[in-house]
Amino acid sequence: MRAAILAVGSELLGTERLDTNSLLLTAQLERFGVVLCRKAVVGDELEELGGLLGELIGAAELVLVTGGLGPTADDLTRQAVATALGRRLIESAEIGADIEAKFASFGMRMPEVNRRQAEVIEGAEVLANRRGTAPGLRIDHERGTLFLFPGVPHELEAMVAGALVPWLERHAGGPPREERLLKVACVPESTAEETLAPAYEEFGTKAIGLLASAGELQVRLTARGGAAGRGGLDRLEQRVAELMGDTVFTRRPGETLEAVVGGLLGAAGYTVATAESCTGGLVAERLTRVAGSSLWFVGSAVTYADRLKVELLGIDVELLERHGAVSREVAEAMATGVRERLSSDYGLAITGIAGPGGGTEEKPVGTVHVALAGPANGSSAHRRLRLPGDRRRVRRLTSQWALDLLRRELLAAGGGARPA
Amino acid sequence: MRAAILAVGSELLGTERLDTNSLLLTAQLERFGVVLCRKAVVGDELEELGGLLGELIGAAELVLVTGGLGPTADDLTRQAVATALGRRLIESAEIGADIEAKFASFGMRMPEVNRRQAEVIEGAEVLANRRGTAPGLRIDHERGTLFLFPGVPHELEAMVAGALVPWLERHAGGPPREERLLKVACVPESTAEETLAPAYEEFGTKAIGLLASAGELQVRLTARGGAAGRGGLDRLEQRVAELMGDTVFTRRPGETLEAVVGGLLGAAGYTVATAESCTGGLVAERLTRVAGSSLWFVGSAVTYADRLKVELLGIDVELLERHGAVSREVAEAMATGVRERLSSDYGLAITGIAGPGGGTEEKPVGTVHVALAGPANGSSAHRRLRLPGDRRRVRRLTSQWALDLLRRELLAAGGGARPA
Repeated sequence: MRAAILAVGSELLGTERLDTNSLLLTAQLERFGVVLCRKAVVGDELEELGGLLGELIGAAELVLVTGGLGPTADDLTRQAVATALGRRLIESAEIGADIEAKFASFGMRMPEVNRRQAEVIEGAEVLANRRGTAPGLRIDHERGTLFLFPGVPHELEAMVAGALVPWLERHAGGPPREERLLKVACVPESTAEETLAPAYEEFGTKAIGLLASAGELQVRLTARGGAAGRGGLDRLEQRVAELMGDTVFTRRPGETLEAVVGGLLGAAGYTVATAESCTGGLVAERLTRVAGSSLWFVGSAVTYADRLKVELLGIDVELLERHGAVSREVAEAMATGVRERLSSDYGLAITGIAGPGGGTEEKPVGTVHVALAGPANGSSAHRRLRLPGDRRRVRRLTSQWALDLLRRELLAAGGGARPA
Repeated sequence: MRAAILAVGSELLGTERLDTNSLLLTAQLERFGVVLCRKAVVGDELEELGGLLGELIGAAELVLVTGGLGPTADDLTRQAVATALGRRLIESAEIGADIEAKFASFGMRMPEVNRRQAEVIEGAEVLANRRGTAPGLRIDHERGTLFLFPGVPHELEAMVAGALVPWLERHAGGPPREERLLKVACVPESTAEETLAPAYEEFGTKAIGLLASAGELQVRLTARGGAAGRGGLDRLEQRVAELMGDTVFTRRPGETLEAVVGGLLGAAGYTVATAESCTGGLVAERLTRVAGSSLWFVGSAVTYADRLKVELLGIDVELLERHGAVSREVAEAMATGVRERLSSDYGLAITGIAGPGGGTEEKPVGTVHVALAGPANGSSAHRRLRLPGDRRRVRRLTSQWALDLLRRELLAAGGGARPA
């Protein structure tokens, strides 16, 4: 089966917005092995929209349309589809009553313009909109099937789950593709490829996909649906988990590195404080993105000026002068200092040169020291980094390495991997 | 003139990437008043690409194609266009020699596959690629004009400036539209619309566009090109600047609020330190995104745990107990405390409830106090906020209000507006 996606809305033809709804639709098409042959965007213009709909119906059996179902005069999708298919638009008393009831539940009278949203294309199946007023429509025609979805992302999302997925299950042939995800911190893509060589050999290159972003790598495993596919995928996932070891920080798609660190701290009953120089508070900011972080995050000393490393963290002035602010010695003293001064179980410290200025031959831009002081007797860790990229990238990568250093230390202290 | 944009590349039909090149092209079309009637994305598939090209040539006089000009077998744009227009592909010895010379300049031999990039569509104008090997092409045909551009963004960017803009100047009729931008902090869109009512009345609604994002509003002014348009735009810009007053923080498109604050601090020779609770270091992190921030940013005390407000900032325990951590009194004490303890000219303090937990009836989620302590005798400022949205949005908006509080104080202390 071949599919095409059409996004309707003049705002999507400007310089500010892109059609991102298509990514959500594409993910479902991919799951069910439906080939997406093209995507299109068109403005709120009846003739243009009608012509394009005709072309798409000719190009693909399944056409998914988003947007243009609203109540105003520039919402033209229903009308254009009716014309393109040579069908009538009929006002549905039932849908009208439903929309009126939705307004009533907010204590409002339905504006007269919303009556347009009760118009149904002859022969269409109405798709309930649990999160808004405009219902979707599914129209089977002689060359295939058309879905009309609302353009508002969270309304679309609910309708995809409630209407498109069940339809694909019945019509796209076979159960959906199975997927697994492992997220890895601070491993370059090339290193991961080498590490995974035995898995590529055993399971084939198509089953394993890598997607890299700053300091994070997603390892995506896929297999055909059904019990056999699932069984193979279980074995592949186990093999990849063995090969990647504790570089895998989560198998949950939405979970961030800072949330994993917070979970480990919370489970162990430990707290952390950070001492930051070149990251300027980024590590603290990331940790406090996690809801409930007050249970395990106490605070941070952002000691950007060197004198504050002395005044707030108790660093020896001589140590600073002898080794320079960007050094293993100062990083370790910052970690110990913040742990003591802020009375936390762990102290995590960062000092480095984010650029663009401040680099020297010996310590070029991207030189960073990360240090950790822990609760066990003398427990500590240190990493010296040479990071690539501009100021923004160096800071982002540094925060990633710092959080991962703490994560590994917590795993080691816990005596084993966190249960998945 | 009507235009269509086509992006070629199977990677643009997956779940990870969107065609962002079209935004760059759209900006130029808008400048010259060319109407974009549709956008399309297609994979590396000859038949599909050929069919779509035919449709687009029928729909628009100007068709802009990006991608598919590379050297590999899946780069099919040249071939598909030649077929769609019924023209031959001819290998150009001159372009071949040029590509060979580019490789030679890197000390490499040209791979044989790159010879494909020397193929030219009969009758096409070759567009030089200053940043890569694949030349672009412009083909005038009986129904209009086609541009073929490389898909690599920085190659495309140079070719748009070098070839598309001059062509639009000659063919789209008249000089490009003139634009001005004013960026405003912490003013709701509806308030700005009311404030700008006299300007809408005098200059028309089409000349003024508002684009809102979290805590920031872009006011865009446009006029037809040429001396008359520019003159009108100067008057409009002055009127808008008068009406919006010191809520305008910059007229430079790429300049951030934190960079403006840094510029004001640097110009006045002042330093700042922050004391942050619910923002967890976000304000410090934003200030240190600015290169060279060590000249005016000294550090931050992220006092997430209440006891650190006492230990690091010297807040009176009784004050905390009497008013609660989220109060005007504590915010002001934090500002004074961080200014004294970190020896900065300004102390900027934030305490609030970012959610999702921690809200009460009296102080619901989104309640935030921002306070500033300054160098002049008793100089201080305070804002109590009730911010909408989730944790992420409350933190972002808070950082925006805090930075803007400091900006306005610096403007007031400087005795006037910063020269634009």
